[in-house]
Order: sequence, then structure tokens, then C-alpha cells
Amino acid sequence: MTDEAGTRRDKPRPSIKDVAALAGVSWRTVSNVIHGHRYLRPETKAKVENAIAELGYKPQTAARQLRTGRSNLITLAIPYIDHPYFASLAHAVVEAAKAYDYTVLIDETRGLPEKEEQVAHGYQNSHADGIIFSPLALPVDSILAARDKTPLVLLGEHTLDPRIDHVTADNVESTREATEHLISLGHRRIAFLGYLTEGTLGTGDLRLEGYRRALTAAEIDEDPELIIGAVTQTATSAPVSAESDYSREEGYARAQQILQLRQTSQIDAVVCANDLLAIGLLRAFREADVNVPGDIAVTGWDNTPEGGFSTPTLTTVAPDMNAIARFAVEAVHRRILGSTEAPVGRVAPHRLMVRESTAGGLP
Amino acid sequence: MTDEAGTRRDKPRPSIKDVAALAGVSWRTVSNVIHGHRYLRPETKAKVENAIAELGYKPQTAARQLRTGRSNLITLAIPYIDHPYFASLAHAVVEAAKAYDYTVLIDETRGLPEKEEQVAHGYQNSHADGIIFSPLALPVDSILAARDKTPLVLLGEHTLDPRIDHVTADNVESTREATEHLISLGHRRIAFLGYLTEGTLGTGDLRLEGYRRALTAAEIDEDPELIIGAVTQTATSAPVSAESDYSREEGYARAQQILQLRQTSQIDAVVCANDLLAIGLLRAFREADVNVPGDIAVTGWDNTPEGGFSTPTLTTVAPDMNAIARFAVEAVHRRILGSTEAPVGRVAPHRLMVRESTAGGLP
Repeated sequence: MTDEAGTRRDKPRPSIKDVAALAGVSWRTVSNVIHGHRYLRPETKAKVENAIAELGYKPQTAARQLRTGRSNLITLAIPYIDHPYFASLAHAVVEAAKAYDYTVLIDETRGLPEKEEQVAHGYQNSHADGIIFSPLALPVDSILAARDKTPLVLLGEHTLDPRIDHVTADNVESTREATEHLISLGHRRIAFLGYLTEGTLGTGDLRLEGYRRALTAAEIDEDPELIIGAVTQTATSAPVSAESDYSREEGYARAQQILQLRQTSQIDAVVCANDLLAIGLLRAFREADVNVPGDIAVTGWDNTPEGGFSTPTLTTVAPDMNAIARFAVEAVHRRILGSTEAPVGRVAPHRLMVRESTAGGLP
Repeated sequence: MTDEAGTRRDKPRPSIKDVAALAGVSWRTVSNVIHGHRYLRPETKAKVENAIAELGYKPQTAARQLRTGRSNLITLAIPYIDHPYFASLAHAVVEAAKAYDYTVLIDETRGLPEKEEQVAHGYQNSHADGIIFSPLALPVDSILAARDKTPLVLLGEHTLDPRIDHVTADNVESTREATEHLISLGHRRIAFLGYLTEGTLGTGDLRLEGYRRALTAAEIDEDPELIIGAVTQTATSAPVSAESDYSREEGYARAQQILQLRQTSQIDAVVCANDLLAIGLLRAFREADVNVPGDIAVTGWDNTPEGGFSTPTLTTVAPDMNAIARFAVEAVHRRILGSTEAPVGRVAPHRLMVRESTAGGLP
């Protein structure tokens, strides 16, 4: 971290509210003074101007952009703004960027190749200082080929590449821990929900790998019947849509398959590739009068707020969202300041949130 | 709607995938041709170029911006990106804007006055063609005073004002309908959760008004004890934070108050000002072994996806999100094209989604 960044974080800029408090007026009055509105009493104006001077308050203006040649805008490109994981991530990035005085604008790509090309290309017609990009369709080679000079940081494990700054959570290890937790509770017949048959930049295959490692460590044989896919669409060359594949609706639909399987085969637990699949599963199990965790234990991944209020509450992997956001903003900020250091890959911590869906709770 | 808009919507632009399909190659190959990458076979290049010509495909480039003086960017400013209602709204606006070939960038304001001033001011250092703005702190007078020439459309009922284009749902009427639904089921002792003691631009007071109208129409006396606030913070001049006030956590906390009240007073049903409050309430009632809807019926507002999978599923008001988004994009597009017509206010339709939390369901 540079000195400039360090200093900025230690002493946050005074806000309009600080000025208002010191001057003993409302923030609207401060705003009126700043914008030179009429009908202000001279005493009020003087009080506000003194407070502005004392605090060194500087309203955000185009002046700084002209001075520095920077817009102080960062673009965050994510696949699905209406997916709770990405919504939380977007909020965390907005907050983390405040420490460096950046405004973050969020772009929803839906994982469309054309859209992602535009992102990798630095948007051409936009003026962001830097980009934080969670790709779904474009492999890292295409991103590197398409990118312009705009500082670019990648999110997601499939883009781990020594040629570019990136931030991720440890999908394999965290899912291994969730599976190990189920094994430690005595479960042996554990299903995995969320296998994707198509190659994508998603995390389903990494989480499946974590599940497999836990089984292997416990010397439990893998049963292919218990690996449940999450692809409803016909296989094509189009990018797999996480919208349909990792949704509550998909979890609900796949639950029927698991309930069917349960007629002839024992199932103790289900490791879901994300929380939304698990939420759909919980609802379907409830309708079928299958008790969770009594009959079947369930885990998710994401720590979406919803899983803390569902019945039963959901055991899930909680990636440290604030760390992901902070690492990403720090990385892009460093490049914006002109750093030519070697690209850095950072892995954010995670923890397992044990709740009712594995550990007991309401009857 | 202008002819230009109409034409654009009737004939969507050919996409890179259309070109790929016609040329019989992958979209990455098309992308490589467009970006002039090396190592392409001449036959492949020719096939792609012919397909591009045949379809009239035009990659998005800065060239168009130079030609039109427009960026084809719209900024959507909303208070909370991680609130499911605004996340859905953001996605709907992104989709609606595609019909007019706009990219939407989303800005999270957290309802901070400084931030909202920046939005009203046209961002100064941004280059969006237009802005769609859902304000929380700034009254419409301040917005009108601060705005620059950037086309600006407001979302939210408190900003209904003949001086500026705006789009809203009918908060009063929709909540009246939800309350009437409860009355039609025989409930008389109906509480309202989500009253805000501070004046804000939120919708809590409008929804309370709808609740009151339904009671009045049914000749049910209002009981002040049954109007439950949702303000946890000390009253100050700071804008009320919907983050803390309209959350699952707040619903859960206020449920304790309702359970207390229930010791001495009858309560048949609770009209919640939004879905998140209702979700928190459902969880608390479940823990207290209060059956919904058997003991107490519950309604929400927003139609968040979560309410379709909760136990019980949640009866809620569903605003037509796609209509809100379409109206807003149409309005800002008209201004971007230079329309000087009088400002238009449009009210999007809504409907009541009756589910288990009022109508029976799982035991």
C-alpha cells in the first residue's frame, strides 16, 4: 500500500455533515452555501465558510478531475446484480472504494460475451479510472487480448493468472470444510447439488472438487448418482446462465430428483453449490415433509442474508466479502497511481457458518 | 414514443452471436476479426466479414459516440444495491435500456445527502446521457435546484411533481388492497409494521395511509397501539436509514413487541411496509411457535423472490417492476432525444400476490 493510500484511510475526508455539525446548521444549508444559493443570511454564510476552512472540507467537483486527469470513478462489472451474492459484493466494493474517494458505478453483464468484451476493452466510451471485473464468459486469455490500458482487476478463481491482478475466495477448501462438517456429524451418503456439465468460469466445478477431497479424506467412495447437475438448458456453446442454473427455482426443481432418488437410495445430506439452490431445496423438502436436518442435512455457499432467516436457518460458507472488496479496490487503486509491480493474486478468508440446517434447531 | 425508438425496438440490433451463427464460427472468432487479431485464416476472416455485412452488424465503438455526441450510458442512482427490491429494479432497468441500446451504470447512494446532491447535479465528472434517480434524502425542490442539463427522471412517489418526469407505483392503493384482503378474510385486529416517525422520502407513510383507508372503509376503528414503528435509531435530523429500518433484523426485533402486545390484546394480522420486515417477522413467529396464518396472518410489499420460497410463502404487493423500468427508460430516452414536452408522471400497475401467509398452506 502506498503512503498516499495509507494517509487517506487514516484521515477520512471531512463530510458535509461534519461541516454542518461544526457550523451548527443543517447539511442543506451547507449545500446552499457551497452552491452559492441566494437568500442566505450573511452570518449563516460566514459560519459555514469558517467551518469549511477549519475542517479543510472540499466538495467533490470536476475541478479535481481537471487537475489530476482522473475521474475518480471505478466501474465494477458483475454478471447478476439481482443475485444476492453479487448485490452484497457490489455494496462492499462501493464501501471499500470510499476509503480512496472513488465513486463506483456497477455494470451488469449477464455473462454475455459481447458485454464482457466491452468491459475488458475498458468500455471505450466511458471514463472510469479503473475496472473491477467478475467475468463469466470470457476466459482470461481473451480478457488479456482485449484489454486496453485501463487498470483492470479480476474477481473469481478461474481467472487466477500471474499476468493480471486478481482476487478470489478459496472455493475448493471452503467446500471441503463444509463437506467435512457433514462427515463429522456422522453423515456418509452426501449428495452434491450444482454440478455444471459445461465448462464455464463459474465456481461449481471448484466446489465439487472440494466436496470430493473431503470424501476422499474420509475414505468415502464417491457415488456418481449423488452428483446432481444444475443445467436445465440444452447444452450449447452459449455460456451457461447462472441465472437459471444457480437459482432458488433450480434448487426446487432438483429437489424432486433427490426425493425420487431417496425412494431407492439413502441420502443423509446435500452440499449445495450456493445458497439459492439450498433455499429452493429447503422449500421443496418442507413441502414433502422431509425434515432438515433430521432427515437430510443441507449446506449452502455465499452466506446470503436470506439464509439467516429461512426455516431452518442455513449452514453456509461465508466468504469475507469486505476483504474481497478491499483487496480489489487496493489493487486497482495501486495501478491507477501508476504502479508497475508484478500482478498480485490475493485469496480472501472464509468461514463456515453452522446453523440449523445441519446442526439441529426448530422441529 | 418516437419513431426512432419504435424502430429500434421492432428490429433489435444483430448481435455478435448472430454473426457467429451465420458465419458458422464461434463468437470469439468474430471478436478476433473485429479486433483485427493476427493468426486468422483468410477464409475465416472472409466468412465473418460477409456475415457482418449481410446482417449489418455494428460493434459498439467510440465511433458512434463521436458521431452523435452521446455516450449511450444511463446512470441509475438507487439507495441500496443490496436491498432485493432495488437489486430487482436495477436489473429491470438494465434490461429495459437494452431496447434503446443504452448501457446502464448503477450508483449506490445509501441515501446520503452529499451523494444525492452529486446525482442531482448530473455527476459533473461523468458522461452519462441521462440519469434515473430514486432519491431518499433530497426533497424534489433541492433536486430541481441542484440539477444541471442532464436529462433526469425520478422514481418514487414522494417526488411526484409536475416540474419533472417521474415514475412510481401506487403505494396507498396497493396497501389498501392488501389490508382489504385481510379484512375480507375476517380479520379485524390488524397491525401495521413500518411506521416511520421521521419525515423521509420513503414509502412507509404512504403505505400506512393505504392501511388506514381500508380500515375506514370497513368501519374498523384505528388502534394506535397497533401502529408499530420501525425506527431503531435516535431521532435526529439525519435521514432515516432504510437499511436499518426496513430490514429482516428490524422485523425480527419488532416481532418481540408484537408478541408482547399479544399477551394483553388481540392481533389477527400484520400488514408489513415491506417484505424484509415480514421475513423477519415470520422467523420470529416461527421461533415463538406462532402459526402464520393460523394465529396471525402477514402481508409484505415488494414481491421479493425470497417471499416465494419462505415458510410460509409470503402474501405481498407486486409492483410491475418491468413497467417501472420501461416507463423510466422511455422518459429519459425522450429527453435525451431532445423532447421539450411537458414532464410526464406515470404510475406503474401492481397486483396482490396471495400466498400462504394469509391464505393457509403448510401446517
